[in-house]
Order: sequence, then C-alpha cells, then structure tokens
Amino acid sequence: MPLLVVGSIAIDSIESPHGSCPEILGGSATHFSLTAALFTRVKLVGVVGEDFPEDYLRVLRSRDICLDGLQILPGRSFRWSGRYEGSMAQAETLSVELNLFGTFEPTLPEHYRDTPFVFLANGSPHVQRKVLEHVRDEPFVLLDTMNLWIETERRALVELLGRVDALVINDEEIREFTREANLMRAGRAVQAMGPHTVVIKKGEHGALLLHEDEVFAAPAVPLAEVRDPTGAGDTFAGGFMGTLARVGHKRPDLEDLKLAVSVGTVCASFNVEDFGPNRIRHLEPAELLERYERYLRMLQVSGAPLLNASLLPVSEHTV
Amino acid sequence: MPLLVVGSIAIDSIESPHGSCPEILGGSATHFSLTAALFTRVKLVGVVGEDFPEDYLRVLRSRDICLDGLQILPGRSFRWSGRYEGSMAQAETLSVELNLFGTFEPTLPEHYRDTPFVFLANGSPHVQRKVLEHVRDEPFVLLDTMNLWIETERRALVELLGRVDALVINDEEIREFTREANLMRAGRAVQAMGPHTVVIKKGEHGALLLHEDEVFAAPAVPLAEVRDPTGAGDTFAGGFMGTLARVGHKRPDLEDLKLAVSVGTVCASFNVEDFGPNRIRHLEPAELLERYERYLRMLQVSGAPLLNASLLPVSEHTV
Repeated sequence: MPLLVVGSIAIDSIESPHGSCPEILGGSATHFSLTAALFTRVKLVGVVGEDFPEDYLRVLRSRDICLDGLQILPGRSFRWSGRYEGSMAQAETLSVELNLFGTFEPTLPEHYRDTPFVFLANGSPHVQRKVLEHVRDEPFVLLDTMNLWIETERRALVELLGRVDALVINDEEIREFTREANLMRAGRAVQAMGPHTVVIKKGEHGALLLHEDEVFAAPAVPLAEVRDPTGAGDTFAGGFMGTLARVGHKRPDLEDLKLAVSVGTVCASFNVEDFGPNRIRHLEPAELLERYERYLRMLQVSGAPLLNASLLPVSEHTV
Repeated sequence: MPLLVVGSIAIDSIESPHGSCPEILGGSATHFSLTAALFTRVKLVGVVGEDFPEDYLRVLRSRDICLDGLQILPGRSFRWSGRYEGSMAQAETLSVELNLFGTFEPTLPEHYRDTPFVFLANGSPHVQRKVLEHVRDEPFVLLDTMNLWIETERRALVELLGRVDALVINDEEIREFTREANLMRAGRAVQAMGPHTVVIKKGEHGALLLHEDEVFAAPAVPLAEVRDPTGAGDTFAGGFMGTLARVGHKRPDLEDLKLAVSVGTVCASFNVEDFGPNRIRHLEPAELLERYERYLRMLQVSGAPLLNASLLPVSEHTV
C-alpha cells in the first residue's frame, strides 16, 4: 500500500572523523523516502528553494518517489550543518537555516488524501497537524519529533499524540519529554497520551518497541565502522513504515511491528556506512535481504532444552 | 561440570531512588556464585574477616556452594558503599575499604585444582594470576576486570589476557582500556591480545559477544523497575559461566556462547529487581526458565518471506 511522508528536504554539510561532506542531500523526508521506496510507493510532501540541485531531485525520482506534493519556491532550501566526534552518538549542530521550511504550509494533491500509511517526519507540530487534517479514511499514522519541539511546542505535540497511532522518538528525547529515566516507563507514559505503539530509537544500542502491553527489544546490527549517522533515525523509520505499508495492515499487530522494527534496524545499519544518503540511494534489495537474513540468524539462540528446570541442581535447603 | 571462582566477598551498603540497604551481602564472587550455582557445582575462593555474618555464609551454603577455598581471617571484610541516581546506569562509589581483600593471597584446596571452568572475578590481576598458576588441565578461563586495574595495573592485565580464553568487561571500561570508541573495534583489539571471546556488558542495553570472527548482540530484558543494579554484571557472568559449565564444552562454539549470553542476560534481569542478592538468592529455577522462554519468544521475528527481493518495487533507472 502507498505511503505519504511530510518532512524536511535539506542541504546538509557534515563533518565526522571519517571526513567532511559539504552540501549533500539531506532532510528527514529524504532519508525516510529513499528507504521506504524500497518497499512501496512513496508520496512526498515538502518544500525546497530554487537553490535546490536538480541532481538531488533526480535521486528522489530514481526511486520512483512521487514529487507531486513537493513545492519548489523562490528562496533558499533548509540547510543544516553538523559534526560528529568520539563515539559519534550525537551530532553537534554547527548551524541551522530553516529558510523556506520555516514558513512551510503543506498542501496535499487530491490523489495523496487517502494514502493508508502516513509518516509525519520531524518538523513543526503545526505542519504535522495540517497534513493530518487533510488525509481521509483513518490511515495508520506514525509521528516523529525532536527536542526543539518538545521544548517549544509541548502542548501542540501532546495534542498531536492524541491523534496518531504511533510515535518514533530517540531515547534522550523521550526521557526529556516524559521526565522519566526508565525507558519502559517513559514509553508507557507516552502510550497513556494516545498512541498504542511507541518506538524508542537508541542509536548503536538498537530500538525498543512498546505495543499495547507488549514489548520488543532489537539490538542494532553491530558495525565496526560508522562514517556518518546523519539520517539513521529517518532511515530506520523508512524501513519500519515501508514494511508496515508492504504488509498492509492498517492496524498492525505485534508480529507486524516486530518485523518492521527489525527491517528498520537493518536499513539504518546501511545508512551509517557512508555520508548522507550515499549508501541507501545505491542499496540493492538483494543486499538488504542478505543482511536482514544474517541479522535474524544472529538473533537466533538454540540450546534452550539444556536449561530444563528439573535438571537445575539447586539445593533443597532454603535459608 | 564444576566451576571455580575467585573474587570479592563483601559487605555492601547501597542507596538507590528505591531506598537504602546497609550492610547487605555483596562482592563479585558472591553475586556470581549465587547465580552460577543454579546451573552447576561452584567452588569459591576468597577471604572474609571475623566480622562477616554467619547468616551470609549460610546464604552461600544454601546454594551448595563449596566454601573449602574460603579463608576466614582475623580482621575486617571488604566493604563497599555506593549510590545510584537518575537512570541508575552507574554507581557513585561513596567508600571502599579493601581490608583483608587488599592483601589476599589465594590458596586452592587440592580438589579445586582441576576444575574445568574458571572465573577470575573482578579483583587484582595479582590474585587472578595466582589462581591461574594453581589450576591444571587447561580449564576454560573467563576474566573480569574494572577501571581501577586498567588504570593502575595495565601491564599485568595485558599479560593475563594472553593466558585466558575470554574477557567480560563493560562498555566504558573496554573503551578506556583500548582507547577505541567503537565497541566492535574495541572488542577486536582485545581479541588481538589473546582471548578468542570478548563479552561487552552494556547494562540496560544488553551485551555484545565477539567470538573469533563472529558477533552476537543480545538486548537486555526490558524492565519498568530497576531497584538496585549492584552485582548485575557478576550475575550476568554467573549465568554465562554456569551455562557454559553445564553444556560442558571446554572449547565452546558460537552457539554455546550465544546460549550463555542469553541466559546471563535473563539472570541479570532478576538481580536488579531487588537490593543486593535478595532476588537471586530466592530465585526458583522455574521462574528463570519461564522468563528465559519469554525472552526467546520476544527475540523471535517472523514474516521474513514478505521481503522477498524480487518483490521490492525499486525503479529500474539508476542515477
């Protein structure tokens, strides 16, 4: 089933211990779309300026991403520059220019309005709510956010949470949002605001899924080299939502969601191997499938019968 | 097969957001033994003073732990006090008194000397080496350590690494030891010093196992309440080594080690539910088995056929 995404389409400049990459294609909707398009048809809503390179639009078109909802306006595109050091767990933002994204009013082409899966990528709650108001037929909606909106638009965010099926958020953000250090309790606190599903991204430590009363923890794919984590969270979301849309259950169950988290985890592991979307834009389905199968084999543990309770040699005395 | 452990047997005083617990049974060898004894016969090497409560010895005996290698000497036992706050990921040490453990010279009863599995729990590399010198028949040896020894006894530690099969260490410690931020690379750097197996403990994020060229990542059991993480690492090691000893392969393969990491992970999840060893000392094999089976079910992901490569709708154009 098709998938709608609204979010930023940006020009990024990135420094990491592995080099620097000025003026590269970036943005939450970009990273998400390039990944989700491996699984299903993606319809993009966003804005760029006249400075946006035609080559970058071609990258999006090369994955058959529908750009009918993309506005190209006079002015400058969203720009972000950041730097990673040490364990590269967090970017240091060097500069942000919202430019046209700061005043963006999304409009949905008619054929976007009944898309059954919707991702509200990181952006202002105002833009996210506008898109929600224009979709029909109760799609499955996944919301993302970041510390900026938690700090400046808390009320709008809480209101949005009452209207979505799921939230994807990173560990530090959900701790800040809920003021709860324990991630399980933080996730439960968000569920109490509305979403039946919460996915907590933990970077190199993988992801934690809460769905109704159930929980699933997925480790990240262990990697010896991380060149640039920019967009890893959106790539994860792209694999997650791409999988759900492909499965096609608008009310996904725990098994659907576990599959989606696992696929998202593997997609994110490719993203960090090169700068920006350079790895994902050239990713072949066969490579993804091969690493996914390796990941499932890694998770597989055998030998449980050895632990048969009756064999445990615990003493009969108790204290 | 039986298991030998040398390490600290302590009196701990612990404060956490869930309360405080003065003068509780503690120590690396204690937490390890109480867990490993659920799986196999444990022979303890250690020292306590005349101040050590007889009740605490009874706790160890209640799990049929062999105390023939325990010295009870005039003087005071090892004492540690610490406090946890916030996410409780790390203890703040309030005081340490090594007391008799600071001058401990381990001696092995004759019937300990050909134990096939040996755990050198956290303690000085001097004590650890002494025990290694007295065992026969090439046991499987697992080494633990901490930042104190990394900083003050680096050379002795590196020498020990050349003589053991495996190292268990936490993430911050291995980063400090290898000066490598990426955990996979840090693990590979330790393997280059000797051990074919490295287990990196990541607290609430689970564990990472490197064995020869293979890797396994295990998430922690998600928990909504952590009362006291003291001894979680040694409890993990107890489940890990207890499992290996029970399987009985002195040269464990990847499947044995994955099983051991998974069991250790589940054991650690019990430890943190109550202060000190209060949860583990009363743990029933059936409870452990039930949670272990639930953990394996959590890790199980189905639905992979949906991702069949030929179905992915990637465009035929490339950029």
